[in-house]
Amino acid sequence: MNVSAADLARARATGTSYRVEVERRIAYEVRETIGSAFDLADSSLADALEGRPVFVVVDRRVDAIYGTALRAYAATALRCLAIHPLHAVETTKSLSSVESLCAAMHAAGLPREGVLLAVGGGVTLDQAGLAAALYRRGVCYARLPTTLVGIVDVGVGIKQAVNAEGGKSLIGAFYPAYVNLTDTTFLGSLPEPAIACGIAEIAKMGMICDARLFELLERDGADLLASRFQHHPSAREVIARAQTTMIDELRENLFEDDHARFVDFGHTFSPALEARTGYQLAHGEAVGVDMALATAIAVELNLCEAAVLGRLAALLRAARLPVVHDALELELALEALSAARAHRGGALNLVVPRRVGAVTFVQTVEPALLAAALARVRSAA
Amino acid sequence: MNVSAADLARARATGTSYRVEVERRIAYEVRETIGSAFDLADSSLADALEGRPVFVVVDRRVDAIYGTALRAYAATALRCLAIHPLHAVETTKSLSSVESLCAAMHAAGLPREGVLLAVGGGVTLDQAGLAAALYRRGVCYARLPTTLVGIVDVGVGIKQAVNAEGGKSLIGAFYPAYVNLTDTTFLGSLPEPAIACGIAEIAKMGMICDARLFELLERDGADLLASRFQHHPSAREVIARAQTTMIDELRENLFEDDHARFVDFGHTFSPALEARTGYQLAHGEAVGVDMALATAIAVELNLCEAAVLGRLAALLRAARLPVVHDALELELALEALSAARAHRGGALNLVVPRRVGAVTFVQTVEPALLAAALARVRSAA
Repeated sequence: MNVSAADLARARATGTSYRVEVERRIAYEVRETIGSAFDLADSSLADALEGRPVFVVVDRRVDAIYGTALRAYAATALRCLAIHPLHAVETTKSLSSVESLCAAMHAAGLPREGVLLAVGGGVTLDQAGLAAALYRRGVCYARLPTTLVGIVDVGVGIKQAVNAEGGKSLIGAFYPAYVNLTDTTFLGSLPEPAIACGIAEIAKMGMICDARLFELLERDGADLLASRFQHHPSAREVIARAQTTMIDELRENLFEDDHARFVDFGHTFSPALEARTGYQLAHGEAVGVDMALATAIAVELNLCEAAVLGRLAALLRAARLPVVHDALELELALEALSAARAHRGGALNLVVPRRVGAVTFVQTVEPALLAAALARVRSAA
Repeated sequence: MNVSAADLARARATGTSYRVEVERRIAYEVRETIGSAFDLADSSLADALEGRPVFVVVDRRVDAIYGTALRAYAATALRCLAIHPLHAVETTKSLSSVESLCAAMHAAGLPREGVLLAVGGGVTLDQAGLAAALYRRGVCYARLPTTLVGIVDVGVGIKQAVNAEGGKSLIGAFYPAYVNLTDTTFLGSLPEPAIACGIAEIAKMGMICDARLFELLERDGADLLASRFQHHPSAREVIARAQTTMIDELRENLFEDDHARFVDFGHTFSPALEARTGYQLAHGEAVGVDMALATAIAVELNLCEAAVLGRLAALLRAARLPVVHDALELELALEALSAARAHRGGALNLVVPRRVGAVTFVQTVEPALLAAALARVRSAA
């Protein structure tokens, strides 16, 4: 580096400008465990953590069932600094809960080359993921989802977020877990509504790009729900299809530089609906209601046959998911469209089906048409 | 996407694994304004913001002096949604202040394609930068530093952070401002100690890689301080050298994947010292004290001539910066070494000078040697 007087004079004339440009590789894996993650006979989890110091965040409910096995595994197979049970509910998913996690990691002495391992459902993964992104400006993050939504949805993407005054997921980051372990044995102990929420997200993937997946849910949805994906002959194919279609949709637009995303199907009205119900309605339930309304809009716009709405409603009912919700009134739906437009760079990009397995974008929804769609979905419910 | 039964059987045998890998370009610019940024005759700031909706975060003290000019400029040349004065002090630089900024951006209706413009010193830029990184999972961030530290240090890197229980900068992110405007006219209204803090960071760059820069400060430091870099013949060269040497050091290791960084010179003992004094000691002051101690360690280790410590101490004194501080006792210095080791992946990587313009890493500092270095720096002060 040598700045001569002539260089400086030239810079003065043109306005000095320095440009920094680097390429950064973002990589992550989604991997199946061989057996149960906390079975000492299975080294999947220990292998994934690569011998690094580990801080474990575990959903309290998961800890109540699997805590003994987790502690035995951690003591034997991991360099575990601490196990931190988290009261993981949507209503307390905030930046202050993330700060508490960072303080706990600091107290446990987690170094910069350590790993935060999150064990739980979407709400746990969201908070832990943001804490991993922020602690010491980012430590390695590993996920072991214990819910169906965690396995097929949250656990294959890179979005982390918490809620804040005025908005769901208003504060967050794009931050990958370098490894995501798929262990479906956890699903065996889930309450039925939690499985149903995962089915809603899987139905979404079927509707947007995989008719076979949608048909599998139509055929086996009720049985998959009852069996909680344990020992059901379709369970693995359904989960594999849900994960791979999701990954394929995310891969080319991982940071959402393009706001037109098919995977936003079911995610336009649902954030407002969840917030309006004080998060009493679960995310997957709200997604189901949202998909039904979006499909009714497509029918009203003559983009899609009415039979598709009938098939979707039947699938949701079979999974004991709501098709409509009283809180989703015209006014709230209109607000949700405005919020979505703001979040998607000024374009609405409402995803609606053309048929099962194919979707398109709609840029305008008139209030009268929205009212008609709301009436239609109510009669289909 | 088509998963056959054979595919699934094969996957079962090997353990299904999906890998996602993408390249992400990180780019930013550091640019000089032509005149004063808020002068309507200068379009530098408006050009940099590219007509996007803007939310402005401005240090209260800056607002008190430049608020009228800022508002006039914003009303005429920017799509300004709101101007948010910030009480920017180190002691309240926390995650909750970041959350308040996010709530204010939301209340102002800042969309995802909007820009957060931060106007202020390092403390303002740190908080605003983290808010930009987190609001809606990241919005465009632009910086107009108003302090010398902001111009030569904070404003050319991509590190954002706030303090948390138990640690300075414990919570943060690597998040670039896509544009950083250099407008040295702001320096004219700064209090002398704030200029001195910038001189400490510039001296750091001189010591690690640019002897000419160090010599310029030795020759002109006192005059640059007195003139506040206004109309001084060396001002532009000093700032240009400080910025370009910093950029060159950062460029190859922007995300600190390599924990061995020359720019950590002066940044090993200083975080602990700042925290111990309740942030009464300013960052730049602590950096000066840290550089002097690190140089004394190099002298004790026979890595560097004692004259270098003498030159550094003289430079600091001429800039009215402390060379030693009572709070930096042996115990605190040892704690700081441990913390640095933890933060740098287990290796100490203490940066010490070989001579003016060249540094090296030290991996071990024995307590007795540290005590001798403390005594040496006290007698040099």
